[in-house]
Amino acid sequence: MNFNIIRAGRAVLHVTDIEKSRLFYEKLGFVVTDTDNENLFLRGLEEHNHHSLWLKQKQEPAVEVISYKVTSEKDIDELESFFRRQGREVKRIKAGEQPAVGQTIRVQDITGIPIEFYAEMEAVERLLQRYDLHTGAKVQRIDHFNCMVRDVETAYHYYLHKLDFACSEYTVGEHQKIWAAWLHRKPSVHDVAFMNGVGPRLHHIGFWLKDPMSLIDGCDVLAAAGYSTNIERGPGRHGLSNAFFLYVRDPDGHRIELYNGDYLTSDPDFKPIKWELDDPMRQTFWGHEAPDSWFDEASDVLDIQTGQKIALQQPKLKKSKPQFIM
Amino acid sequence: MNFNIIRAGRAVLHVTDIEKSRLFYEKLGFVVTDTDNENLFLRGLEEHNHHSLWLKQKQEPAVEVISYKVTSEKDIDELESFFRRQGREVKRIKAGEQPAVGQTIRVQDITGIPIEFYAEMEAVERLLQRYDLHTGAKVQRIDHFNCMVRDVETAYHYYLHKLDFACSEYTVGEHQKIWAAWLHRKPSVHDVAFMNGVGPRLHHIGFWLKDPMSLIDGCDVLAAAGYSTNIERGPGRHGLSNAFFLYVRDPDGHRIELYNGDYLTSDPDFKPIKWELDDPMRQTFWGHEAPDSWFDEASDVLDIQTGQKIALQQPKLKKSKPQFIM
Amino acid sequence: MNFNIIRAGRAVLHVTDIEKSRLFYEKLGFVVTDTDNENLFLRGLEEHNHHSLWLKQKQEPAVEVISYKVTSEKDIDELESFFRRQGREVKRIKAGEQPAVGQTIRVQDITGIPIEFYAEMEAVERLLQRYDLHTGAKVQRIDHFNCMVRDVETAYHYYLHKLDFACSEYTVGEHQKIWAAWLHRKPSVHDVAFMNGVGPRLHHIGFWLKDPMSLIDGCDVLAAAGYSTNIERGPGRHGLSNAFFLYVRDPDGHRIELYNGDYLTSDPDFKPIKWELDDPMRQTFWGHEAPDSWFDEASDVLDIQTGQKIALQQPKLKKSKPQFIM
Amino acid sequence: MNFNIIRAGRAVLHVTDIEKSRLFYEKLGFVVTDTDNENLFLRGLEEHNHHSLWLKQKQEPAVEVISYKVTSEKDIDELESFFRRQGREVKRIKAGEQPAVGQTIRVQDITGIPIEFYAEMEAVERLLQRYDLHTGAKVQRIDHFNCMVRDVETAYHYYLHKLDFACSEYTVGEHQKIWAAWLHRKPSVHDVAFMNGVGPRLHHIGFWLKDPMSLIDGCDVLAAAGYSTNIERGPGRHGLSNAFFLYVRDPDGHRIELYNGDYLTSDPDFKPIKWELDDPMRQTFWGHEAPDSWFDEASDVLDIQTGQKIALQQPKLKKSKPQFIM
Repeated sequence: MNFNIIRAGRAVLHVTDIEKSRLFYEKLGFVVTDTDNENLFLRGLEEHNHHSLWLKQKQEPAVEVISYKVTSEKDIDELESFFRRQGREVKRIKAGEQPAVGQTIRVQDITGIPIEFYAEMEAVERLLQRYDLHTGAKVQRIDHFNCMVRDVETAYHYYLHKLDFACSEYTVGEHQKIWAAWLHRKPSVHDVAFMNGVGPRLHHIGFWLKDPMSLIDGCDVLAAAGYSTNIERGPGRHGLSNAFFLYVRDPDGHRIELYNGDYLTSDPDFKPIKWELDDPMRQTFWGHEAPDSWFDEASDVLDIQTGQKIALQQPKLKKSKPQFIM
Repeated sequence: MNFNIIRAGRAVLHVTDIEKSRLFYEKLGFVVTDTDNENLFLRGLEEHNHHSLWLKQKQEPAVEVISYKVTSEKDIDELESFFRRQGREVKRIKAGEQPAVGQTIRVQDITGIPIEFYAEMEAVERLLQRYDLHTGAKVQRIDHFNCMVRDVETAYHYYLHKLDFACSEYTVGEHQKIWAAWLHRKPSVHDVAFMNGVGPRLHHIGFWLKDPMSLIDGCDVLAAAGYSTNIERGPGRHGLSNAFFLYVRDPDGHRIELYNGDYLTSDPDFKPIKWELDDPMRQTFWGHEAPDSWFDEASDVLDIQTGQKIALQQPKLKKSKPQFIM
Repeated sequence: MNFNIIRAGRAVLHVTDIEKSRLFYEKLGFVVTDTDNENLFLRGLEEHNHHSLWLKQKQEPAVEVISYKVTSEKDIDELESFFRRQGREVKRIKAGEQPAVGQTIRVQDITGIPIEFYAEMEAVERLLQRYDLHTGAKVQRIDHFNCMVRDVETAYHYYLHKLDFACSEYTVGEHQKIWAAWLHRKPSVHDVAFMNGVGPRLHHIGFWLKDPMSLIDGCDVLAAAGYSTNIERGPGRHGLSNAFFLYVRDPDGHRIELYNGDYLTSDPDFKPIKWELDDPMRQTFWGHEAPDSWFDEASDVLDIQTGQKIALQQPKLKKSKPQFIM
Repeated sequence: MNFNIIRAGRAVLHVTDIEKSRLFYEKLGFVVTDTDNENLFLRGLEEHNHHSLWLKQKQEPAVEVISYKVTSEKDIDELESFFRRQGREVKRIKAGEQPAVGQTIRVQDITGIPIEFYAEMEAVERLLQRYDLHTGAKVQRIDHFNCMVRDVETAYHYYLHKLDFACSEYTVGEHQKIWAAWLHRKPSVHDVAFMNGVGPRLHHIGFWLKDPMSLIDGCDVLAAAGYSTNIERGPGRHGLSNAFFLYVRDPDGHRIELYNGDYLTSDPDFKPIKWELDDPMRQTFWGHEAPDSWFDEASDVLDIQTGQKIALQQPKLKKSKPQFIM
């Protein structure tokens, strides 16, 4: 059975100061679709849907949900039946209850990450060719979610065999256990990745840039606007995924990856690429070590029913950070 | 019915001097998978299949066939049945009869263009991260075919409604008749485009570059290597498709487009973009006129059965070239 | 004698609609230092002086003067004496008579082009690292003037032997006559170039960009803002000077070159590079022909005393445009 | 008195394995002018002189001398007289004693760094437009030397007031003492910089790249060729100098900076830019800390007379590394 999940669609994040967030994301190069005192809807320049990032003003930063777009309402129904059969509680949200989006279901996935499925989102003007309005890193579109979880191997099998994702690349640690996996529905490197670590937490949301110079421009604009300390890692190139990357932290610490450089994964005969955890070129092709914060810090996620933070668990595989002998 | 056509896969071109072709395509930034006195197999840097361009030494330049990759052998069988039901002659080529590729079928499509479907092609080393071997424009992968035909509207309906392609953008001329259409299976702007003109002929084959600077590098390398007269048009940006483009002519006049800059077309709610034929920003966003050769010249195509050139027909719509009032 | 001419400094242009000009130059990526109904002062992002382009509202477009910066007031005095000895009328403008600039002298040079020398200009904030304010093509600084004149050879000898410029590159036509010459004081390819043609006229003013992508961005922004018809030529690469170039026309037809890519010319043992007029790679390394307007059109220049247009003369060398056999 | 020092010209380095060095520098994008078992002469793509880097096979890595180009032999004579008047031992090397270079003088500068002056170097083909031969980071030309010395303030005054360098930017530490200074003869940010530290040592030699993408390409090519551990720092942007930089270590640990992005410093009214040592944007505009090795390690320099290593001294200013509070 194929649920017609199209792609990573949007994330709903809690932030503590909407105005501070707006200033930051605007400089970074997002388009503000709409905002008020309590909400900020952001999208990339090529996006024809209302938002790919919805920030809500709350007491504490957290991830309310990450959402996948599916082909039709029928897919939502089928996913609901599937999750119920699996014994999971599903929360249905009717059209009209959330701005700009049609009906959805939310569920805690097998790792505890809150996920959502929707088929419809309000159309807005695509600004792809309004180059006169492009600023900062000229963010093009949402690309993927990266989740830190205690048991990657279970997530891997679930997403591949139950939700029909495909694997583009993966990392093995001791005893060839899967330490991280990059999984996709759209034919890019990923819509979602899972990494071994204290979780479930959202490590970052990846946004696609049109070229490497937009990433350099993004660094310069952020720094000039006083956000140099928000740049956490990069620019660099990941060996895994081939991405030219930059990681920035928003004012609440949510991590955004800007990136460019993956490849087409459309073919069934494409063989997933295996990396060893301690291969220094895996993390950074150019050989730099990532800062500790990149391994240690991530965003807490919420229970879809209670709205409370999901309790964190230690990772199943001991090593939560690669060791480089350089 | 969905035939699981994945993407534009490869083209088989006839050329009159394999060695001259090899020198040209190497400078342009292709990888030579294999070559002998009569054949040249080329691929892009991210391609894991044996070739996306097969050049054969012949008396005259021509297009033998353009080929689409499908998911499995079953799709080939179903396509064969479909075309036979449509009353078309289908030529089946067994595995082993062509180098590196499994069994295929060939057929003249509704416009007369010779097309082929295959599911299997020999795997080779992907050179995506062998940056030390990248040269010229660093060609990444095949992207699309562009065909000049007498009746675009018929092709459009056939590919959309019989072969399950989707339309990303199209151009209308007088009386809102479809003058050109960009159609895709993979979620990019196109796998194939049809333009109104003397046909059936292959106008060009598009190859994807990783960034705009690779295209500039390609110009510089070609010019330095003595190929400046092979650069026909560009660099420029198409309004339609948003591609940053360069058109070059190979030693036999076959036209190759190098390009970068399209967008994701995965969503069913993406509305095809309509352009007016005489909108000057459609052809070239930056306002330049294309040279006459770009409108007048294209590669002849062959009959899959006889190997003879398909007779050319005048286009159905009168205007075969846009008029810009600039 | 060395007059300590430092570099091309600024140009004073007459335009017919200050507001239209302001909108255009802002989109192009200039910084507006100051403006009122009758004047517009523009500079590049790295410039620490008040302006490099002064536009004045007038009835007709024209070039009032092009100005060179010298080391000190003493150089102005010495240049005045020199020009008077040469029998030229010199107009001295006292400090305070022109906004932002110290005392100057103006004179018609040997080709009839109105030139000016100044040592002092008001300091302003350099915006080089205010990346958050950079837009369009991110114009960095003025680089050179290009003048179309009837007798290049005379200009060449005058600037080299009287004004101590050095030659980086030159073009010869029939009988090895100098058809064009690139002359510099700062160690770049040029501060001023002379080309054979109907003159004296100012062909264009060149501004330096920091990298090739800024030029591409400039094209996209201009086009998106409705200025695609203002793009006259390019992007392309000049063989001569190695510049990656774009020529745009402002609302009054004044031509601006955006460019990147020359080289250091500091060394006395650097040999000027000779090009043949009909070498197709000279004008455009990538082999494209320039549009006729680029050869035919240029800005009229004014008499420094009367403010009237200087009468045009036919060029001394017959061929005013190269012939390419391509 | 002005000695007509033109620019930083070349460095002579001792290395322990010429073949290993050649492989490294070729991948990095240098041109090999000439090599044998004991010598390797390297230059950048726009250089018309024989070499800007001369590597000699020796037992131990060291810096034999850094050399400045002057206008004429007369300048060499005048510099010799000057240094002798200053009580410094000057070593004259006749034309013919060194390959490709005319007569020179060598002297230990006021900080102990071995410097040399030459007016003539053999001309070679400039490869600026042989784009088909460009590889790696496409190194364009030598730009500057960076020296780590115990007493920057003395060096600063000496180079400014005795050798007629100008200062573009400088850093002050406690009590406004000069901690580092960027000094130039050619109108760029620098030909030589001095930094407070254990010295005299050569910290790095800077080479100019034509654009930021060449630096990214350089990283990718080095990494793909197995040199990822040679990448020490970057890519990043210096606040000071505005350089987009990469620091790499050659097989003997000599440090090479690849960079792009400075600005024109031709004007006498340009005010040197002052930075505070602990301003985090000074070192890295984007806010990253440099690795310890970048502050601690540098190349030893030799005595021009004895060929022995110059003894190291502790820096005059206590803080040899900035402290960032981030």
